[in-house]
Amino acid sequence: MAQADQSKPYLIGVDFGGTKILSAVFDSDLNCLGRSKKKTKAERGKEAVIVRIADCVHEACADAGVELSAVSGLGIGAPGAIDLNRGVVVAAPNLGWSEVPLQSALHHELNVPVFLQNDCNVALQGILEKEFPSTPKSLIGIFVGTGIGGGIMFNGQPYSGATGTAGEIGHMIIRAGGPQCSCGNRGCLESLASRKAIYRQLENRMKGGEVTSLSSDTDLEGLRSRALRKAIKHGDPLVTSVVENAAENIGLAVGSLINILGPEVVVLGGGVIDALEMFMLGPIIETAREVALGEAARQVPIVASTLGDDAGIVGGAVIARKAIFR
Amino acid sequence: MAQADQSKPYLIGVDFGGTKILSAVFDSDLNCLGRSKKKTKAERGKEAVIVRIADCVHEACADAGVELSAVSGLGIGAPGAIDLNRGVVVAAPNLGWSEVPLQSALHHELNVPVFLQNDCNVALQGILEKEFPSTPKSLIGIFVGTGIGGGIMFNGQPYSGATGTAGEIGHMIIRAGGPQCSCGNRGCLESLASRKAIYRQLENRMKGGEVTSLSSDTDLEGLRSRALRKAIKHGDPLVTSVVENAAENIGLAVGSLINILGPEVVVLGGGVIDALEMFMLGPIIETAREVALGEAARQVPIVASTLGDDAGIVGGAVIARKAIFR
Repeated sequence: MAQADQSKPYLIGVDFGGTKILSAVFDSDLNCLGRSKKKTKAERGKEAVIVRIADCVHEACADAGVELSAVSGLGIGAPGAIDLNRGVVVAAPNLGWSEVPLQSALHHELNVPVFLQNDCNVALQGILEKEFPSTPKSLIGIFVGTGIGGGIMFNGQPYSGATGTAGEIGHMIIRAGGPQCSCGNRGCLESLASRKAIYRQLENRMKGGEVTSLSSDTDLEGLRSRALRKAIKHGDPLVTSVVENAAENIGLAVGSLINILGPEVVVLGGGVIDALEMFMLGPIIETAREVALGEAARQVPIVASTLGDDAGIVGGAVIARKAIFR
Repeated sequence: MAQADQSKPYLIGVDFGGTKILSAVFDSDLNCLGRSKKKTKAERGKEAVIVRIADCVHEACADAGVELSAVSGLGIGAPGAIDLNRGVVVAAPNLGWSEVPLQSALHHELNVPVFLQNDCNVALQGILEKEFPSTPKSLIGIFVGTGIGGGIMFNGQPYSGATGTAGEIGHMIIRAGGPQCSCGNRGCLESLASRKAIYRQLENRMKGGEVTSLSSDTDLEGLRSRALRKAIKHGDPLVTSVVENAAENIGLAVGSLINILGPEVVVLGGGVIDALEMFMLGPIIETAREVALGEAARQVPIVASTLGDDAGIVGGAVIARKAIFR
């Protein structure tokens, strides 16, 4: 892994998702000094996306009034399976990436030490640092955005398994034979409850003529989770039903995971949960408690992160700080 | 936990399942000296079942020519969620049991130190002791019998989670809205691929008039996995199809578990796998590899235990030995 200069006071956290890139500059106490946001535009290809990440970092530095040369390290979470030793995105179906050496490519662009991990493990470390006064021994984090990812902790440490790819909760099959997923399988959690899945269901059911406040020329792909929240608040029956379905599917996965792993706590995060928590958390908990087997399993706390969309950038700074001061 | 006398040379292992009880006497090197087998007859109620377990132990001692007074400890695996501290079967849907103090009840019947754990964790420890020259760091065990249970290992140790009930792999939902499970939910792995599930599907499809060598007065509940193997060998199209379906559902669960946990190895065991491995292991592996995300995940070895039905009794002796010599 890259060497970092402990004498430089600033850290950068980058949350690199299928839809957007968030970047922010932090001091060593994790106070945010400036930030920037860009669309990912994965369809333009990996070289273009890497340049967009670098641009986003430059903009965050400008917003913070901090020179890149004063930054001791950059932590980035990427949406997929990561080979930590090589700093490579092994597989990221939502981006169409496989075997992309993102860590070295970003280091080449920015000339700061870069630390790459799975986006969900990064967000989880941000949440743990900011929201849990004492680190739980075992925890499952589920992040619902363009895709669905997860992070697992045992004995107070992030767990990536013997394969290095543990935590791919979006690709647990909960409705075999269900909708096609970006990974090629059918009925993965991601194909049922991610932002993409919600849009596809809205589209299909609008074509079927269901009543909704969304008009047929609404740009569904461009629709934000906040627009869904607004539609539900105004009593839109279609959006309400689709979002409730998504929440129930997440609840089935959470209940199954509690049966498999019996964690101390389950934390939900990501853009979809951040915007729709008030409608989704209730049905998620209710469904999960129905699936959970035994009293102890039914009592596992299921909570939404309060960091919301900032979990990834905070976590990026946390992993950079850990790598530098380890 | 009970005190044990290290000077006594014999150990007893009991595998207590939804259909049958196996009991065996071992020397301290885990050589089997005698054994016995009984039907569980759970419908007769918990008191009757506990007496049947004690009878089965007496018969195994008689078979081995060993007095109970020469036994230093008895390890038993029970099919459900166990509270290890209290020695209580917290929930065992296949038996209709909840909050049964099995450890103290058996100690009362037999007057030997009794050590109770979940049946799958016990079988896993038998398999590890006999089949793995070096203990894998992380492992998932899946046991397919009357029900489906699992055992998980991290850092070379059995893992029961913060709830004490981790490893309830039979109750991960893989076909939401699917068949009703004994736990009350729909589409659990157990409702799709356990012996009970296989029988129910055979029954339903026979009523639908499908071609089979099984006759309409076949006692399906009493049908053994070996009879299914015989039917498949003779080209029975219905039995072949139902067993293949079960294998595919197990494969979906194994692939999902590899995505979630990225283990070093997955081990399959239990009566159904023992009898039908030659027909089930291929489709299980094929389906799991389709679901597994990334090259490392697709390369996780998926193997069948060679101990077969003996994993539970050997494991019982292993946990008793560990408890005594800890």
